[in-house]
Amino acid sequence: MNLDRARELAGRVEHFVRQEVARYERDPRVGAHGPSMELVDEMRAKARAAGVLTPHILPDGGHLTHRETAIVLRAAGLSTLGPLAVNVSAPDGGNLFLIGKIGTPEQKRRFLRPLIDGRVRSAFFMTEPAAEGGAGSDPSMMQTTAHRDGAHWVIAGSKTFITGADGARVGIIMAKTGESATMFIVELPDPAVRIERVLDTIDNAMPGGHALIRLEGLKVPPDQILGEVDKGFKYAQVRLAPARLTHCMRWLGAATRCNEIAVDYAIKRKAFDRQIIDHEGVGFMLADNLIDLKQSELIIDWCADVLDTGASGTVESSMAKVAVSEALFRVADRCVQVMGGTGVTRETIVEQVFREIRAFRIYDGPTEVHKWSLVKKIKRDHASSLSR
Amino acid sequence: MNLDRARELAGRVEHFVRQEVARYERDPRVGAHGPSMELVDEMRAKARAAGVLTPHILPDGGHLTHRETAIVLRAAGLSTLGPLAVNVSAPDGGNLFLIGKIGTPEQKRRFLRPLIDGRVRSAFFMTEPAAEGGAGSDPSMMQTTAHRDGAHWVIAGSKTFITGADGARVGIIMAKTGESATMFIVELPDPAVRIERVLDTIDNAMPGGHALIRLEGLKVPPDQILGEVDKGFKYAQVRLAPARLTHCMRWLGAATRCNEIAVDYAIKRKAFDRQIIDHEGVGFMLADNLIDLKQSELIIDWCADVLDTGASGTVESSMAKVAVSEALFRVADRCVQVMGGTGVTRETIVEQVFREIRAFRIYDGPTEVHKWSLVKKIKRDHASSLSR
Amino acid sequence: MNLDRARELAGRVEHFVRQEVARYERDPRVGAHGPSMELVDEMRAKARAAGVLTPHILPDGGHLTHRETAIVLRAAGLSTLGPLAVNVSAPDGGNLFLIGKIGTPEQKRRFLRPLIDGRVRSAFFMTEPAAEGGAGSDPSMMQTTAHRDGAHWVIAGSKTFITGADGARVGIIMAKTGESATMFIVELPDPAVRIERVLDTIDNAMPGGHALIRLEGLKVPPDQILGEVDKGFKYAQVRLAPARLTHCMRWLGAATRCNEIAVDYAIKRKAFDRQIIDHEGVGFMLADNLIDLKQSELIIDWCADVLDTGASGTVESSMAKVAVSEALFRVADRCVQVMGGTGVTRETIVEQVFREIRAFRIYDGPTEVHKWSLVKKIKRDHASSLSR
Amino acid sequence: MNLDRARELAGRVEHFVRQEVARYERDPRVGAHGPSMELVDEMRAKARAAGVLTPHILPDGGHLTHRETAIVLRAAGLSTLGPLAVNVSAPDGGNLFLIGKIGTPEQKRRFLRPLIDGRVRSAFFMTEPAAEGGAGSDPSMMQTTAHRDGAHWVIAGSKTFITGADGARVGIIMAKTGESATMFIVELPDPAVRIERVLDTIDNAMPGGHALIRLEGLKVPPDQILGEVDKGFKYAQVRLAPARLTHCMRWLGAATRCNEIAVDYAIKRKAFDRQIIDHEGVGFMLADNLIDLKQSELIIDWCADVLDTGASGTVESSMAKVAVSEALFRVADRCVQVMGGTGVTRETIVEQVFREIRAFRIYDGPTEVHKWSLVKKIKRDHASSLSR
Repeated sequence: MNLDRARELAGRVEHFVRQEVARYERDPRVGAHGPSMELVDEMRAKARAAGVLTPHILPDGGHLTHRETAIVLRAAGLSTLGPLAVNVSAPDGGNLFLIGKIGTPEQKRRFLRPLIDGRVRSAFFMTEPAAEGGAGSDPSMMQTTAHRDGAHWVIAGSKTFITGADGARVGIIMAKTGESATMFIVELPDPAVRIERVLDTIDNAMPGGHALIRLEGLKVPPDQILGEVDKGFKYAQVRLAPARLTHCMRWLGAATRCNEIAVDYAIKRKAFDRQIIDHEGVGFMLADNLIDLKQSELIIDWCADVLDTGASGTVESSMAKVAVSEALFRVADRCVQVMGGTGVTRETIVEQVFREIRAFRIYDGPTEVHKWSLVKKIKRDHASSLSR
Repeated sequence: MNLDRARELAGRVEHFVRQEVARYERDPRVGAHGPSMELVDEMRAKARAAGVLTPHILPDGGHLTHRETAIVLRAAGLSTLGPLAVNVSAPDGGNLFLIGKIGTPEQKRRFLRPLIDGRVRSAFFMTEPAAEGGAGSDPSMMQTTAHRDGAHWVIAGSKTFITGADGARVGIIMAKTGESATMFIVELPDPAVRIERVLDTIDNAMPGGHALIRLEGLKVPPDQILGEVDKGFKYAQVRLAPARLTHCMRWLGAATRCNEIAVDYAIKRKAFDRQIIDHEGVGFMLADNLIDLKQSELIIDWCADVLDTGASGTVESSMAKVAVSEALFRVADRCVQVMGGTGVTRETIVEQVFREIRAFRIYDGPTEVHKWSLVKKIKRDHASSLSR
Repeated sequence: MNLDRARELAGRVEHFVRQEVARYERDPRVGAHGPSMELVDEMRAKARAAGVLTPHILPDGGHLTHRETAIVLRAAGLSTLGPLAVNVSAPDGGNLFLIGKIGTPEQKRRFLRPLIDGRVRSAFFMTEPAAEGGAGSDPSMMQTTAHRDGAHWVIAGSKTFITGADGARVGIIMAKTGESATMFIVELPDPAVRIERVLDTIDNAMPGGHALIRLEGLKVPPDQILGEVDKGFKYAQVRLAPARLTHCMRWLGAATRCNEIAVDYAIKRKAFDRQIIDHEGVGFMLADNLIDLKQSELIIDWCADVLDTGASGTVESSMAKVAVSEALFRVADRCVQVMGGTGVTRETIVEQVFREIRAFRIYDGPTEVHKWSLVKKIKRDHASSLSR
Repeated sequence: MNLDRARELAGRVEHFVRQEVARYERDPRVGAHGPSMELVDEMRAKARAAGVLTPHILPDGGHLTHRETAIVLRAAGLSTLGPLAVNVSAPDGGNLFLIGKIGTPEQKRRFLRPLIDGRVRSAFFMTEPAAEGGAGSDPSMMQTTAHRDGAHWVIAGSKTFITGADGARVGIIMAKTGESATMFIVELPDPAVRIERVLDTIDNAMPGGHALIRLEGLKVPPDQILGEVDKGFKYAQVRLAPARLTHCMRWLGAATRCNEIAVDYAIKRKAFDRQIIDHEGVGFMLADNLIDLKQSELIIDWCADVLDTGASGTVESSMAKVAVSEALFRVADRCVQVMGGTGVTRETIVEQVFREIRAFRIYDGPTEVHKWSLVKKIKRDHASSLSR
């Protein structure tokens, strides 16, 4: 771990995001389903030129440690467009991490390289429609299946909330293979991967939005199995904790920026004969933000340290995800409130970040599902303390 | 007060809203700045035919009591489009109430009648841009002025967050006249009332959205002074408490509907081997909703009873506004959470109501401003208890 | 219902409590297990003389309506000793109500009369030790049994948290009779009702405290069955909702008094160049109290109205109990905080009320158990809405 | 910093506290004003024998780093009596730290040595009675004065909430000297330091309780000035941050123990057909505890690291104090709730820790005073960011 290197890198990312990216925040190419790919490409060209594209991947192909990544991604998150601009956004980050861990050399050449170069986007096909009884938070309910047909596999089913699927060039698809599940990596678009509809959602930071998809007999050759057959759930775990934590890192940056905006507003705006920050009803909200932001940073760093030991970090990332998503939502909510009428307009990014973080309390596992798994951990620990 | 009459009326409004209005909720004519006037007119034609248009105004021109109104407006609020459809929405409701109280017969004929008939919309020009140091929550900071020019008055200044101004035919404008303020009632559109921009905001229930306006030397004849010169702040108080309370009534209806949707979802959807309502982490959120909705109803009814005694209800409506807006936000937030991914999509109205009620915590006075005035009341009561 | 009568009565109770009872609050006879019976008798003698003893029982033996009772009990609650002084405290109130409903004339003469006269105290033997697997919140786990032995019944088992048992002269005992349960009414003390220990608890308002009891073959003649055999659970429900609601009424009075004390402190005390109430961080807590106290009053009145229709009020009293106990705890907690160091001392009753209301969030069913039963109600309502 | 050394030491302290100290928790010598000195001496004799007395002071007289101290004090806090038993309790810890920093060699020999040896207790005379307009949270209101009388100083005034004064042998007294303040170190008892009354308070962990004191012309020779004349406020700051943080460390230990007790209860106790931990309403409270405890640990460690750089840590310790005291109060409150009736009894230490931590939200600066100073920091940071 080299925190100085990470801080230097983060400094450059922060400079780029504040100076070059923030100005695009009100660009009309940011639509209801996220920024257009044209806008993304334009920003990435600048990032490439500035030497801050895909900054968490080292020149030798290595990956920053999780702890180092935290520092860099927080800087990238200072604009809602920052992670996209420098190519550290979801779901690409998690996909890239996973392919790097378990992909074959050929898969890395074909699918990973263009992702690292920031030339294409990818999607992860996991969750399924509630209305059809499919897997939401409970993966055991997965209904999409893959079965062998000669040398190939054929995948059929429905997926929903597939972030970035519309416009993606790479897809990782999870499907039941008997009692287990298997991951497949495919090129997109493909006529058998039909985007039925891009959902209208409360958030709009992700290009391609979140799509409802029908997998209509998609044929996949055996060399596009990602990792081994039947190990899909295990790999999902590998991807899970780091991906979850990068969400926390990026949103911490966004909430930090919101807080800067709210502080500036509260200092410049007067009402009832004072700067509004001098009304404790306002000032105390900003004091609470200071604490919530610091505690979010601390638990992210702690969890990153755990991941850097090589541990799975499942429990720790659940703790971090719950703590950070709930804290940052409070922060964003207070920023909106501090800014009054201005807070609910798109005059600043505060309004958008509030909406995005509302969704974040559900994405990557709702708070309640994480608490549920924490209860299991508490029971395990109690049992093992008794047996000692 | 005739609660049976009100309940019968509310029953008809509820039937109409559930059967006729709800189906328009996903109509493409509902845009980022609210439903189009075409859509509003279409729904109002049906409401007229069904005998539920402007239901709080009696055939003889009288007004339901506030307590009766509460029952009817809650029914109207069961759809986000309901209040518009039956013509009990803001800001028309408050404007209509105010003109009825202090307008001249001629003003009533010219401005009130079309409003009651649901043929036009109106706007209330009060708040001003923060960036220009104008009046937000603190009316003493008002910078828009009216001065006499011969027989006429000339109004100049900026206003912002003027709900429904875009498309309105009637405007009530508040302007400083010396140390005091005066209200003027005008026909719209008018070239001297320039809509600079309709703000992009988190909410989208109000047709015309919320506009930033320049008043560029608007000339108003003396018979369009609403009430008396220099009594603007007093009239604003007359409008304030009832208008504020009708917001509570409508949003209570909307939150009630969201809760129905969330309960239905939680009962039909399974995860981890149970109906999700049988996970206490979910079920308890719905139990909390039950309590919050009931307490919102009770404090609205209490405040309405106070208003019906003829009291100003300033303190009581501040208490109700804080309690109800915060409680309904919790309700909407829990509904989103209960529904997981679906909760953050526009597949149901839950997502919209969540956004609307977020804004409601700021509109009509942020929570903090109301608490500030409650503190003053506590001090007054303490002083008077000492002097007894 | 005669609210004027109730208000007049409450006025006299309030006067008595503020003038005569409050002065005993720091009397050394208030110990860790509540006030001594000597102190109770001294206060009751004064209440009797002032005509405010047992004020909810009318001269003709009738009972105030629940709604009227709410007004009177709130007045009594203005001192932590008030309910005892005027004989409207728990558990006597609930016991008196139950015997009045289902007792035989002879049982009323023998057990009810002295209770109404405020000459004796009573106890209700329901809950059992957790450590022994007995019934806490879940009555189906009851382990105390009663079996016939000739003409008599013999009761054996353990009970815990039996409020006021130490010093009580009347006991109502709940015991399993086969799959059902039966209530017995007995004279105390009795050697077969062994008080093993009076528990040290966070609260100390109740004389006799809360005792752990062994029932060692207590012999009860058949004419001391309260109501009918095997109907114990049903009677417990009869007692439940009204008893629960009277807790809310009394604690609302106590919290109201705490708030008066905190307001007075915040107005008289200065820090950092202002009255501390003029620090919004303090003033807003008092504004929140104002709202919480009003909402507690409203939901109590609503629930009382439901009970007065003759309905069981089980659901409504669960809603009221959760809302009121949680709200009053927030109120008491804020009063402590507003008063700083003074708030955690026994210089005022604020510290005690804080402790009492902490216990109240558990007594008469913890918040979580009530929410659990509210979830069942939500499911019932949903099912019946589908079948309509 | 040598965390391994600290962990080894903490392991020994933990073993001692769990095995030897915990058994005294229900000793009758723990009274309403804390444990008796006899009990303290008995426990310290054992600690001395076990080699864990005053563990944060190294054999060479040096002090563990703050970060190391955090680990050791958390272990000591695992029993409410642990800090006293191993001599790391307040206010001795802070006093010892201060004398070590600014005392003369003679003062160290005379006052510090016996404190380190655990043979005597000390008190810090700072806060003054609110009712007399003295200094509570606002030190500028200090009314106790010291004036020269020949070679000596004479101190007069009132102090209140002086923890441990009753029974202390060493006192540090803060008094106004003109516009500034000066610290004096004195031997106790002294007839001019009259203990008027030991306050009855919600907490009872501190021997000697909290006393109201009259300083009636206390004569102090010049060699008992602690540090320099007129630098009292500066020294108070030196003592402040570390003392405040050690409170957090100890109470984290206590809350951790409470959580262990509550988890054990929730796993062993059944209701409604399950272990109560398997009711999410209970289990989720324990999951929240897990997160709150971890976040408390992280912010303590962070603040300790800041102090170890030599920085004053005023802001950081305010953040930590607010975050930790509020979080641990939630933890203790949930433990009480999880345990139902048992939670409000003294059958376990949960009830006491709940009361102690309630007081901790006020002691060493109420949450609101800390937030107030955080607002100032936010304004300073904003101003300096503008000037960059």
